[in-house]
Amino acid sequence: MEIIRKNFKDSLSTVYSAIEEADFLAIDGEFSGISDGPSVSALTNGLDTPEERYAKLKKHSMDFLLFQFGLCTFRYDQSESKYLTKSFNFYIFPKPFSRNSPDIKFICQSSSIDFLASQGFDFNKVFRNGIPYLNQEEEAQLREQYEERRNQANGAGTPSFISPSSKGPVNVPDEHKDFINRVIAKVDSLLSNTEKTVDLEPCTGFQRKLIYQTLNWKYPKGLHVETMETEKKERFIQISRVDEEERRRREHEKQEREQEELNDAVGFSRVIHAISKSGKLVVGHNMLLDVMHTIHQFYCPLPEDLNDFKEVTMCVFPRLLDTKLMASTHPFKELITNTSLAELEKQLKENPFKPPRVDFSDGFQSYNTATEQLHEAGYDAYITGLCFISMANYLGSFLTPPRSHISAKSKLIEPFHNKLFLMRIIDIPYLNISGPDLQPKRDHVLYVTFPKEWKTSDLYQLFSAFGNIQVSWIDDTSAFVSLSQTEQVQIAMNTSRYAESYKIQTYAEYIRNKLEARHLNRKWHGDGWVETPYCTSAAVTTSAYAYTHNRALSGKRGFSPSPEETGEANSGVADGNWCDYSNRMDQGSKIKTEAGPAGSARVQTYADVVDSRTAGSWVQSQPTEDSPGDDEKGYDQSNEWPQTSSKKNKKHKKMKTEDSQSSAALFDVPQVW
Amino acid sequence: MEIIRKNFKDSLSTVYSAIEEADFLAIDGEFSGISDGPSVSALTNGLDTPEERYAKLKKHSMDFLLFQFGLCTFRYDQSESKYLTKSFNFYIFPKPFSRNSPDIKFICQSSSIDFLASQGFDFNKVFRNGIPYLNQEEEAQLREQYEERRNQANGAGTPSFISPSSKGPVNVPDEHKDFINRVIAKVDSLLSNTEKTVDLEPCTGFQRKLIYQTLNWKYPKGLHVETMETEKKERFIQISRVDEEERRRREHEKQEREQEELNDAVGFSRVIHAISKSGKLVVGHNMLLDVMHTIHQFYCPLPEDLNDFKEVTMCVFPRLLDTKLMASTHPFKELITNTSLAELEKQLKENPFKPPRVDFSDGFQSYNTATEQLHEAGYDAYITGLCFISMANYLGSFLTPPRSHISAKSKLIEPFHNKLFLMRIIDIPYLNISGPDLQPKRDHVLYVTFPKEWKTSDLYQLFSAFGNIQVSWIDDTSAFVSLSQTEQVQIAMNTSRYAESYKIQTYAEYIRNKLEARHLNRKWHGDGWVETPYCTSAAVTTSAYAYTHNRALSGKRGFSPSPEETGEANSGVADGNWCDYSNRMDQGSKIKTEAGPAGSARVQTYADVVDSRTAGSWVQSQPTEDSPGDDEKGYDQSNEWPQTSSKKNKKHKKMKTEDSQSSAALFDVPQVW
Repeated sequence: MEIIRKNFKDSLSTVYSAIEEADFLAIDGEFSGISDGPSVSALTNGLDTPEERYAKLKKHSMDFLLFQFGLCTFRYDQSESKYLTKSFNFYIFPKPFSRNSPDIKFICQSSSIDFLASQGFDFNKVFRNGIPYLNQEEEAQLREQYEERRNQANGAGTPSFISPSSKGPVNVPDEHKDFINRVIAKVDSLLSNTEKTVDLEPCTGFQRKLIYQTLNWKYPKGLHVETMETEKKERFIQISRVDEEERRRREHEKQEREQEELNDAVGFSRVIHAISKSGKLVVGHNMLLDVMHTIHQFYCPLPEDLNDFKEVTMCVFPRLLDTKLMASTHPFKELITNTSLAELEKQLKENPFKPPRVDFSDGFQSYNTATEQLHEAGYDAYITGLCFISMANYLGSFLTPPRSHISAKSKLIEPFHNKLFLMRIIDIPYLNISGPDLQPKRDHVLYVTFPKEWKTSDLYQLFSAFGNIQVSWIDDTSAFVSLSQTEQVQIAMNTSRYAESYKIQTYAEYIRNKLEARHLNRKWHGDGWVETPYCTSAAVTTSAYAYTHNRALSGKRGFSPSPEETGEANSGVADGNWCDYSNRMDQGSKIKTEAGPAGSARVQTYADVVDSRTAGSWVQSQPTEDSPGDDEKGYDQSNEWPQTSSKKNKKHKKMKTEDSQSSAALFDVPQVW
Repeated sequence: MEIIRKNFKDSLSTVYSAIEEADFLAIDGEFSGISDGPSVSALTNGLDTPEERYAKLKKHSMDFLLFQFGLCTFRYDQSESKYLTKSFNFYIFPKPFSRNSPDIKFICQSSSIDFLASQGFDFNKVFRNGIPYLNQEEEAQLREQYEERRNQANGAGTPSFISPSSKGPVNVPDEHKDFINRVIAKVDSLLSNTEKTVDLEPCTGFQRKLIYQTLNWKYPKGLHVETMETEKKERFIQISRVDEEERRRREHEKQEREQEELNDAVGFSRVIHAISKSGKLVVGHNMLLDVMHTIHQFYCPLPEDLNDFKEVTMCVFPRLLDTKLMASTHPFKELITNTSLAELEKQLKENPFKPPRVDFSDGFQSYNTATEQLHEAGYDAYITGLCFISMANYLGSFLTPPRSHISAKSKLIEPFHNKLFLMRIIDIPYLNISGPDLQPKRDHVLYVTFPKEWKTSDLYQLFSAFGNIQVSWIDDTSAFVSLSQTEQVQIAMNTSRYAESYKIQTYAEYIRNKLEARHLNRKWHGDGWVETPYCTSAAVTTSAYAYTHNRALSGKRGFSPSPEETGEANSGVADGNWCDYSNRMDQGSKIKTEAGPAGSARVQTYADVVDSRTAGSWVQSQPTEDSPGDDEKGYDQSNEWPQTSSKKNKKHKKMKTEDSQSSAALFDVPQVW
């Protein structure tokens, strides 16, 4: 269902009830750009910490506009054993709703716009017919304005008057005296005849102010004065003779009109509030940017600190699930070669997966996945939901007896809750929204600074004595260099002691310096640190509750994927060169044995994940290949996000499938699930 | 004629010849926004210096995209005594032309976008079909890339090869060895059979690089290797067996293809180059932003310094004329009440003006001015041209004998050359592109700083002893206050000596402090100042010549409007409250007597314009009125640019018309014109 400015208000109840009845929701956003800063490769260093990555995305991606929002609701029909879907495609644009409303500026990135254009995206629908929105602060301000005006009016006893600064006779400038006298004459004649209303001619805002002030002073009761607009948008004043009852009725009408105006201005944000309030599972594919944009645009500017972001995210979306992360995690990563949305959807229809049984609800657009409508947000949300269903049901096959339908509330999928895929970080597969992040050991990593003329080959040369290395560029003059063996770090440090053109630090030193710099910076900027209360607004109270509730549950449950499971299972996702599939069987059994005691609230240490990393073998180092990118979120347009080439993937795939077939027998899901 | 990406190349010759044959050109641009910074009122302080205004526009307006460019060419047909027009409406979008080309980011301002949307603007045409462009530096870089590649190829003797860093055997990674060996086998079989060409299967960029390097090393002659693209945009390598002649032919073809690619990438900039090279009069309405955007987008980032901007502008557009400035200047301002483009066009069809005789050239869209298509750039350019013709012809009525057609080359219009209208500056009506700017005396102006709670009324209160004042807000905590009499300045300074909550400086002190701060700032940022050579590129050489030529002419002519004429004639334009029409007759005769000796190159002093200012009477001061804004360039959307209300204008109009009728007889244009 396409929803634009015109049909938004009438469609809202349909949207609300679709959310209400759904078992889970799938979302997707289309943006006017991806990165307004450095090249995407600099934006996504393979050794970013979660804090660094969040800071970069916040800085370089939030000035774009989320201008299409896809929502697909999925309700499971037990009797028919199938899902019924309702898909909504919202066009969004911050049309200023009045003269004084915020005039949003947003950035467009040519490559992203060009990419969407090539997909047939309809920009006219966005800019001419997009639904407006306000974030929570803007909504509060507007509400305050209305209330203030109302209170002033009540205090003055004359409902629609703006309270004048002086209560005495109005100081009317000479050139307006004639005009005001004519208005007074008209009012006098209104009061003495049988007409109830007189319309004044259109006039300027200043003249209207004079009229309000004059009438307020001369006729404190018995008049209703209101500014109206002609069809030509000229403003004029209408004066009505009213008794007390009539006055109250009009006042009531006016308040309702104002409430309606306020609702119109809040616009699309109401949909997000409804999603948030529902507390339902929200599924997305590679959804970190979608989540960040949604919060930034419809709730509040993103907080500086990653932990604050996690807090506000849990308030807005108490249960998230990222299908890209799920597909990149055991037991799926062994079966899935390409986790881009379109490819994933295709693979999840094939053996060993089963195409989900899904129908479109009456009156809703049906999508044909054979004729792709990729990059329409509503369609992308729809197939994201399909992917989730296929994967969830696949988990059911591990149960004894196997189950063909796994609900969105099943404990089987809880290990995937609130873990958002991190693009291209070598050793941290996801951002953990509801807990501390993985902290992989990086003591084989060196931080190297050098003249800006240096190229990757210079780094290879420099470290040629140390076998295979991996280079992660930070900027023109610095990079991380990962050595294959931690023991070599000290040797490298020693040999570089007298170097003049370049400088080497250990990763630990680098982090220490960075923290010190930040600390200095904080001191510099001010002493007091205000704790931002993100969860105070009414709209998110339910969600906040759900969050706590959720945590309590998972604590009680005493089960959650161990860091080893998810850490290991994903170490190969971000970079195909990095991992090794040869000791899967070991690790498979490790999951089983270690899964029990590990709790999600447990703080992860470097040591927790180091096993999986060092278990990886070192592929031959070589310059970055120019390979097909990931086609999601428009990243592919510049092809700057190298991934393993599909050829290579296929080779690995083969290994993987063999392995996973043998390991499948070993991988029995604990019964507590 | 609508020109988009698809028909651009085929239309270019039509555009070129229209420019070639024209007597003058009219242009107009539509942008994705106006101001990304402070409110427009803060952006346009009534006492900005030209330097300040330029700096603000540069800082807050250049990140928007000029996405529609209107060009209307006007050729005078002597035999028919009428103009023939050709109108072009170009859609422009910086579509990245390759993976490595600049990925432009631009800002959209919601209010501007919403305004254009309400006018039926077609955003899909811009984003899907807009013509790309490069500025001069980007063009030079791309040309260099092509040349470098060619030189490398020639040096290596193997035309299409990228020169490998090593000349020895290529270091092929193990996993690619099989692949490369298969390629070598294919080439060997190509060389031994009768086929001329073999297509390899699509492969990654890294593999292609390996192939180039390997073949370059193994088969230095006799092969032509080229990367091609399948319909699915997959890249593959084609290898051909060639003799020397064939090789040269292919090389030549390739160079031509590259030149074509380069031309395509330069795209719309070629139209601007053609306009520039023609040296013809370019007419626009309120055209400062159009000129700034055009240079910024298609030539070079705007220089820091206003004088550098003037220099580069004269290189790109050697003769400019702003119809808004012309309409706001004697003898037109006395006859024209509203200088917004649409209103101006209407008034210039009425007595004493004559509707221009204009026809559309065969095959060109005809516009009907009765059914307005305002804010389509092509249409706006067209009616801007009409306005110019009407006003130019009106000047002919002052000649003895009167002439009904005044050409675009007439000396009569030279006084209006290269003076671009400045919005809302009280005492500087225009930016003088080809000379120093007016420096009005501002010694009745005070610079006041105060707590940010202060409102205009507090300032009125503070200066209540000094009669009427005029307040020009700078920001939350500072404003200019203009006193009605210069003698009061010292009194105000004395009484404020012990004030604690606010501080008063004279305008001269303010400027001095500002210059010192800037000087300090310069010192701070670096010692050496590089002089930017703006006129060095081939494309602007002609224009640069025309500029010098032009100046020489105007020097020889020994005539140009005196600062008094233009300064006085416009003192009322920017702010209706400011001026007085009562002593027009005096001033009319002053123009006549002083016009002779004043030369355009003469540096204007404060004293030059002070007469006109102090001649103004002081209208009653009062808070800013909420009045209809100027409907040009989208400024009106926020209504933040107050102008005299139309009511008031009408009153003045009446006075003006009476006055000008009597002064018309006195105003005889000097015969040197």
